[in-house]
Amino acid sequence: MARYTIGVDYGTNSVRALVVDAATGREAATAVTPYFSGTEGILLDRKNHLLARQSPVDYVAGLEKVVRAALKKAKSAARISPADIIGLGVDTTGSTPIPVDAANQPMCLQKKYKKNLNAQAWLWKDHTAFEEAASITETARAMRPHYLAKCGGIYSSEWYWSKLWHCLKTDPGLFGETAAWLELADFIPAVLCGVRKPEAVIRGVCAAGHKALYNAAWGGFPDAEFLGRLDSRLAELRRRMPARAYSIDTAAGRLCPEWAEKLGLTAGIPVAAGAFDAHLGGVGSGIKTGTLVKIIGTSTCDILVARNNASVPDIPGVCGIVDGSVLPGYFGIEAGQSAVGDIFRWFTNVVCMGSDALQVRLTKEAKALKPGESGLVALDWNNGNRTILVDPQLTGLLVGTTLHTTRAEIYRALIEATAFGALTIVNRIESHGVPIERVVCCGGIAEKNGFFMQIYADVLNRPMFISRSSQTCALGAAIAGALVAGAHSSIEAAVEAMTGVKGKVFHPDPARAAVYRKLYAHYSVLHDAFGVSGPQPVYRVMKDLLAIKAGAQE
Amino acid sequence: MARYTIGVDYGTNSVRALVVDAATGREAATAVTPYFSGTEGILLDRKNHLLARQSPVDYVAGLEKVVRAALKKAKSAARISPADIIGLGVDTTGSTPIPVDAANQPMCLQKKYKKNLNAQAWLWKDHTAFEEAASITETARAMRPHYLAKCGGIYSSEWYWSKLWHCLKTDPGLFGETAAWLELADFIPAVLCGVRKPEAVIRGVCAAGHKALYNAAWGGFPDAEFLGRLDSRLAELRRRMPARAYSIDTAAGRLCPEWAEKLGLTAGIPVAAGAFDAHLGGVGSGIKTGTLVKIIGTSTCDILVARNNASVPDIPGVCGIVDGSVLPGYFGIEAGQSAVGDIFRWFTNVVCMGSDALQVRLTKEAKALKPGESGLVALDWNNGNRTILVDPQLTGLLVGTTLHTTRAEIYRALIEATAFGALTIVNRIESHGVPIERVVCCGGIAEKNGFFMQIYADVLNRPMFISRSSQTCALGAAIAGALVAGAHSSIEAAVEAMTGVKGKVFHPDPARAAVYRKLYAHYSVLHDAFGVSGPQPVYRVMKDLLAIKAGAQE
Repeated sequence: MARYTIGVDYGTNSVRALVVDAATGREAATAVTPYFSGTEGILLDRKNHLLARQSPVDYVAGLEKVVRAALKKAKSAARISPADIIGLGVDTTGSTPIPVDAANQPMCLQKKYKKNLNAQAWLWKDHTAFEEAASITETARAMRPHYLAKCGGIYSSEWYWSKLWHCLKTDPGLFGETAAWLELADFIPAVLCGVRKPEAVIRGVCAAGHKALYNAAWGGFPDAEFLGRLDSRLAELRRRMPARAYSIDTAAGRLCPEWAEKLGLTAGIPVAAGAFDAHLGGVGSGIKTGTLVKIIGTSTCDILVARNNASVPDIPGVCGIVDGSVLPGYFGIEAGQSAVGDIFRWFTNVVCMGSDALQVRLTKEAKALKPGESGLVALDWNNGNRTILVDPQLTGLLVGTTLHTTRAEIYRALIEATAFGALTIVNRIESHGVPIERVVCCGGIAEKNGFFMQIYADVLNRPMFISRSSQTCALGAAIAGALVAGAHSSIEAAVEAMTGVKGKVFHPDPARAAVYRKLYAHYSVLHDAFGVSGPQPVYRVMKDLLAIKAGAQE
Repeated sequence: MARYTIGVDYGTNSVRALVVDAATGREAATAVTPYFSGTEGILLDRKNHLLARQSPVDYVAGLEKVVRAALKKAKSAARISPADIIGLGVDTTGSTPIPVDAANQPMCLQKKYKKNLNAQAWLWKDHTAFEEAASITETARAMRPHYLAKCGGIYSSEWYWSKLWHCLKTDPGLFGETAAWLELADFIPAVLCGVRKPEAVIRGVCAAGHKALYNAAWGGFPDAEFLGRLDSRLAELRRRMPARAYSIDTAAGRLCPEWAEKLGLTAGIPVAAGAFDAHLGGVGSGIKTGTLVKIIGTSTCDILVARNNASVPDIPGVCGIVDGSVLPGYFGIEAGQSAVGDIFRWFTNVVCMGSDALQVRLTKEAKALKPGESGLVALDWNNGNRTILVDPQLTGLLVGTTLHTTRAEIYRALIEATAFGALTIVNRIESHGVPIERVVCCGGIAEKNGFFMQIYADVLNRPMFISRSSQTCALGAAIAGALVAGAHSSIEAAVEAMTGVKGKVFHPDPARAAVYRKLYAHYSVLHDAFGVSGPQPVYRVMKDLLAIKAGAQE
């Protein structure tokens, strides 16, 4: 009889459960539910557009709902019994820390904090802590430069310590009563396993390493001296944090009787340590040495692994290199582009004021163009540049317009610009000794937009594979569940057995690739002139325009 | 009893006559008629999009029609009798050369050339002679560098010798039978005066000096040795050309009996030597030392004068400096921007696919923005750059876009970019010792778009005056007619008496001007980086993209 695991995937607006055959990766059933609080599941503050929080109550309610729904479908569609489920895995957005009390309960459950947004989960895209992020970067540069070397050189306002420090500064009462701050990726497994003490919660190395400056080589989380330089209360908190963080091959615990009953599952089955969606998306896409997984959506996340017995140098401008963050025994390497689909949607919806129908028409028209025919090149920096420049103070650029330039030509140039951005990341990683032999893409754009994928194949001049699963993150979580349940002898074996690519592969066309080589040379010239600090006067243009803009809006 | 003159204005698509009080410049009546041949009056060739010709028959038929119509209106509206008309002036597009036979008849009137497009007028915007233009530039650079110094450094495919040479090369039979090539500005006065021999035609110094390398200081038209280096048949033609060319204070002749009868005017009244529309537009706008006249439409033409007893240095990048081309006794200085209104129309009609209504809405929205608020800066080079870079191999650029950039913000940035382009011209001219004390604008955009004019006032940081007349070119031609008829003691007196500005003046706002000073610094950085030849790699970007584009379209 087949055995199954469940992957639970917490996205930005909804949570999904996927029931997967633990031997083959075949997906038997899935269910999804939106978060019910706030605007599309996000708690906003009219007075502060940087704020983005979520309700832990939504997370817990959604967990029960989607797992039960997925199990119901699995039963009716494939006669899968809850007893066939042998393990669970969890992936989430991040950094999304949640303040909890000494009983591991979210602070927002306390009556006095019920309406306090600081007592909720601090969603990954909350940017309230931008000042704290800058101070952490500055302090680390002075005291602990190696902290920055592993996270691309700049500590982000989206990350763990920035958010904690911002809460400490702006809501010290709440901060003082908080026993611990748990990443959503660690909180959910702890809930499933009935862990009642924060110090007993297994911390995933993915969140710890990529967002909280954890590194086993320097003794785990950042040292108390460093944190004390920020604020003595952060140093205190640090002393209560565990020494180690774990990969997905470690069980966060076993399903507790209470949740086993809620979900209708067998108590005691293992729950894997949690990790971020992109990283488990890499796992669900069949990641291994030499494979780059690109998760392409509104933005893009790039995931690679390299054996941790090999020496992996710091790669300047790459967001993070963390031992075990994707696969145990491998360095996980994360890179990304801060806007991809968002740029196309901006152009079609805001500039052209069109709808999805326009996107379809523009795609058709843009497809009829040849590379280079428009005379356009763009820089894909409408939301800054994450990799390799790690600079939010950059903006979009379009060059080459005439009196005849069409919207379809601009649309194509924007797609090409994101492909050139992707190539820049590939080149940076390869030039630092991490070869990329295969590119596997997943996400909405990769699945639906063949025109986009063909441009990527031509620009990157490599075949572009598409992940077989449409739910790679949830599948990755289910693979973690299968691993801790002992269904496979190793993570490599689990990935090999449970993942695959679609038959449709986008192969580069040599003639188009040759034109794109020429165009990329010009993208690179613009990239370096506007993006790489130096004496050339154009380097100041984007930054000064942003400063003038900020001044004009005051 | 008041005395009147008529200005006849040949535009690209129509011809207009304006009846003007010779003492005050008051406009008594006007009439306009389109050219009837071809597409909106232009003869095109489906196989060659560079070709643009016009029918001399249309010119002559239109002349009779509009003058009679204007006189009829003048009679009924103001009881002006044809006997009150004391002189005529003519302005035209150019360089628009017409091949004529030994009897001064257009070659297209000969039966065998009736359907030959080369036997028609070669309209200013015909670009078939681009190869010849490059060769002329090259030859002049080697043999006669001073020829180029007065025309901005590059001889254009739109100009006289390029077109003649192209005809010689591609249609030697026609060229061989042609007695002379007359600019439209010289042809019409010759028609009115019944001049039957090409050698007797008075050549206007405006067309000769700005387009045909004429300069009294070097002996008139380019020498036979230089032209012989191009082709010996050009040197032969040169020998048949007159030694001198004349300003608008010289009569091209007197109205001949035949045309006096056709028009219902008194035979023997003087007809002024012709000049180009922009130059007589400068006259009609009240040009004098220190006044810059900007004729703002799809593109912009800038006209200045400086006394010819003063030393006027060559101004690098300025299209032409010609003694007497605007006013007798003054150097005429011509500069321009190759696209202004065309850029806005491209954005609203092509990119936004909107209509005039959209332009109204975008203007309203853009008006609500503050300078600098968009974070955008653009380069206004969608049709290359005429002044000060004299480089058609340049293209448009937009920098500073985010995921929130609106179409109104882009629209405003494009208007600002053309204003920055205008400021660059002003700065170049002033830095070469020609002060600009007053700016008078005319043309459709200047008259109708107060939002545009206010941005120009703020960017140029000077008051912007608007010419009182809406028909400044025709008014300038009528002023020339008044001058040769002796209605004024001098050109200065005629301009003073017959022109003026509107009451509405656009004054700069100090706060907005201060922000624009900052933005202009960035426009200048981009201008020099992409537009001024040098080792900086971005200088190649626009040129190479155009080359790649040309390759892709093959």
